[in-house]
Amino acid sequence: MPYNELRKDFLLDRWVVIATERARRPTDFAKRRTEQGQTSICPLHPGNEHMTPPAVLLYLNSNGKIIKDKDTATLRHKNWVIRCIPNLFPAFAPPKVPFDTSDIMKTDNFGHAVGHHEVLVESPNHDEHPANAELPQLVHVIDAYVDRLRDLSANPYVKYISIFRNHGQEAGASLTHAHSQIIATPFVPAIVEEEIQASKCYSNQHCKCAFCDLIEKETNSERVIQENDHFIVLAPYASMNPMEFWIIPKKHAINPLNMNTAEKESFAKTLKSSLRSLKDLVNDPPYNYGIHLSIDKRMQDFYHWHLEVYPMLAIWAGFEKSTGVYINTVTPETAAAELRKTLNP
Amino acid sequence: MPYNELRKDFLLDRWVVIATERARRPTDFAKRRTEQGQTSICPLHPGNEHMTPPAVLLYLNSNGKIIKDKDTATLRHKNWVIRCIPNLFPAFAPPKVPFDTSDIMKTDNFGHAVGHHEVLVESPNHDEHPANAELPQLVHVIDAYVDRLRDLSANPYVKYISIFRNHGQEAGASLTHAHSQIIATPFVPAIVEEEIQASKCYSNQHCKCAFCDLIEKETNSERVIQENDHFIVLAPYASMNPMEFWIIPKKHAINPLNMNTAEKESFAKTLKSSLRSLKDLVNDPPYNYGIHLSIDKRMQDFYHWHLEVYPMLAIWAGFEKSTGVYINTVTPETAAAELRKTLNP
Repeated sequence: MPYNELRKDFLLDRWVVIATERARRPTDFAKRRTEQGQTSICPLHPGNEHMTPPAVLLYLNSNGKIIKDKDTATLRHKNWVIRCIPNLFPAFAPPKVPFDTSDIMKTDNFGHAVGHHEVLVESPNHDEHPANAELPQLVHVIDAYVDRLRDLSANPYVKYISIFRNHGQEAGASLTHAHSQIIATPFVPAIVEEEIQASKCYSNQHCKCAFCDLIEKETNSERVIQENDHFIVLAPYASMNPMEFWIIPKKHAINPLNMNTAEKESFAKTLKSSLRSLKDLVNDPPYNYGIHLSIDKRMQDFYHWHLEVYPMLAIWAGFEKSTGVYINTVTPETAAAELRKTLNP
Repeated sequence: MPYNELRKDFLLDRWVVIATERARRPTDFAKRRTEQGQTSICPLHPGNEHMTPPAVLLYLNSNGKIIKDKDTATLRHKNWVIRCIPNLFPAFAPPKVPFDTSDIMKTDNFGHAVGHHEVLVESPNHDEHPANAELPQLVHVIDAYVDRLRDLSANPYVKYISIFRNHGQEAGASLTHAHSQIIATPFVPAIVEEEIQASKCYSNQHCKCAFCDLIEKETNSERVIQENDHFIVLAPYASMNPMEFWIIPKKHAINPLNMNTAEKESFAKTLKSSLRSLKDLVNDPPYNYGIHLSIDKRMQDFYHWHLEVYPMLAIWAGFEKSTGVYINTVTPETAAAELRKTLNP
């Protein structure tokens, strides 16, 4: 399997994976637009493990006890509660030759989309999406995020790990079975890098983490949707999307690797109730979420991980795409008020 | 009418218009998702001028001769060939008080989305989209782009003018009648500003405009789709979208204001044939296009206007939205080859 190609815009700090591994002929799009629809067999369903690559992580149910099984993960176990598998058509793939980590622009690795691309099956139950999930199952999902984050970040060629979720076909979910995706990249992506640099700059100026400061300043604002011992959920002041919200841990941490059990349970509870509120309020809309984090220890005083939820209730059109300016038809204050009300009717 | 609010992300150089003028209640989205569809009466159709605000620009057909009528533009003429009207729900609106242009962050204008937002009706004929348009009519469209660009950029509070087009409901076109949109903003948007700064940097290093250099280097590349005396059309090396292409003028110019008649006709011809090729190849896909330009004369040696076309054949999902890295499943070389073939069968 050859690598996908990694290309940078000739002017901007904008990277594109030319995913020849999942290459399409242009005319395929014409066909696809007339013949859309889901295949009837779900490859993520228990019993269909033969349809996907062997797992890289399995949580097994052994007489009611959960066993995290990495040694036997290559086998196609059937009694799993969580299953993480390589994406059949990965955007980023592991290196086949020793990787010069000093500079991704140097050596034979130049232009290769080296990394990982995995699908995390969140439950054996097709529709156990976070808004509907049983809490213990959602804690397994969080656990699995953290486990994959730990394992993948140990690779010297990995500089960033994007953990994200697409819900609904309009939001890019090509399979309806509850799943997240994990992509490890050989560089820090532009949006996160800009956030990290701006956070660093903010810290230097204010002697305080930008996100810790945000939490402090927003705590009593009308943009708060919910708050508990460990997390605050708020509609950001400059939300790009209608009903957008962020889940921010109160404890300063660069990434979720060191969450304790109570924090993980709280995260699962907060995620579930927030997504449930969105689902109830807006008729189960398509959405994307992504965790923003850093695995660069030098940034640990500056950066603060969080999860951003982007409901897909508007279309980014010509103006947004060619300018990077967004038009949002719902004020974050209204979004927060309605989500809060739906949360606690 | 109060202003929309202009908000900046607390960390990033990312601006959002909180468009309270077109404000929606969150629950409207639930309704909209179940009751989608077009109203049967087209407000942009000749005879329905009473459904829209008075025009700011009209091209009138007077016994076969085209008259550009600005004086009578406030009247609701019926025999128009081009009609430009303020958007009923503008994202940016003209200032009601004298505007301090020295700093948009200062004074009473702070946080106000001051500017213009117009709809340019491209033809009295509902379906005269650029791919189908008669060439003389498409030249009128280009002429109108330039006329509005000239008029709007004369306002001291206008720092940028975005001319864009959304084709198809999935690409954000809420009306099916052939139309473009024009938005004038009180700041230079992030993507364009980054392009301008990178171009300036490139010019300083290479003693040459980055786009002029690109044209020279790409002329014989497999990414060229078509080329004529005045324009080159190419699939950019790091295309973000399947089948993306850019139309770049060969003559160095910061914006299209000084195009002569031959260049305008050539632009219309190039735009039509390129969009026609896309339409024929991929079954009339939804797309967005946007003109990138600068109205800042200090940048005239550095920046080079062009038009970018983004076919909407893939969904930007959780990974793209939270990282700013794009996955493109069609190589630009394949896209160019197929578009070229469809152009000249």
